[in-house]
Amino acid sequence: MSRWLTDEEQRAWRGLLRMTTQLNARMNRQLQDDYGISLADYDVLVVLSEAPAGRRRVFELADALAWEQSRVSHQLARMQRRGLVVREECPTDARGAFAVITEVGRTAIERAAPAHVETVRQLVFDGLGHDQLAALTEVTTCVLDRLADAAD
Amino acid sequence: MSRWLTDEEQRAWRGLLRMTTQLNARMNRQLQDDYGISLADYDVLVVLSEAPAGRRRVFELADALAWEQSRVSHQLARMQRRGLVVREECPTDARGAFAVITEVGRTAIERAAPAHVETVRQLVFDGLGHDQLAALTEVTTCVLDRLADAAD
Repeated sequence: MSRWLTDEEQRAWRGLLRMTTQLNARMNRQLQDDYGISLADYDVLVVLSEAPAGRRRVFELADALAWEQSRVSHQLARMQRRGLVVREECPTDARGAFAVITEVGRTAIERAAPAHVETVRQLVFDGLGHDQLAALTEVTTCVLDRLADAAD
Repeated sequence: MSRWLTDEEQRAWRGLLRMTTQLNARMNRQLQDDYGISLADYDVLVVLSEAPAGRRRVFELADALAWEQSRVSHQLARMQRRGLVVREECPTDARGAFAVITEVGRTAIERAAPAHVETVRQLVFDGLGHDQLAALTEVTTCVLDRLADAAD
């Protein structure tokens, strides 16, 4: 008794998957080619650069990015080797370490951000009218609420 | 002279990124826990299972998935070791190999598909009205067209 997707739902679903895969690939390539950082580096640097004193606990970073803990750990290790972040252990709290953005990391995100945002604008927002933008926010809010409910 | 995103655009953009990351994580976990395959395995098996005789050239598979060629090659190697696909070289055409779904692969996708689709339905489509579904299709079509234009 499977409830398969209708043709219209299937079209929307495959479009959404294809759009996000292609957007991620394009953004990653642009950041790599022009600034030598990956999209994953960029996403981590955004979260840390917006945090007070440029530092977040690693588990908070995982939550902010919606990544698995193991992915965050591997990513931070790679970024630390390249000087973009440092990991600071926390002797008084077993919940652990902080990730902290370095000056090198701040410089990297400040250099890359304008062209990255311009790419997002050209590929996505310049093409959308106000109603489409509102509808997109409605859809993502609705799905995020359902994801949060399903996690309880 | 950066054209930064407006607050509303920023909200829509971060919502979209967060939604797709969380959906992918949830779908991956459900497939792993219940069926022992990853979301990447699932995506490859869907494309091959729908192809004539269950076979596609590797570069066509990369295109259908919007993945880099190297990612497809690594993914197929892992799946071949587990018996889900076989790789068939093509002696007459330098453009290369085919990926072919095996009986094991077909069984895996047929077992996993109903629960996977049910998850997608519950998390996404059961929450959307007809207008929202239409708007989602409009947005993804618009962005995919812009991605295609930008690739020319």
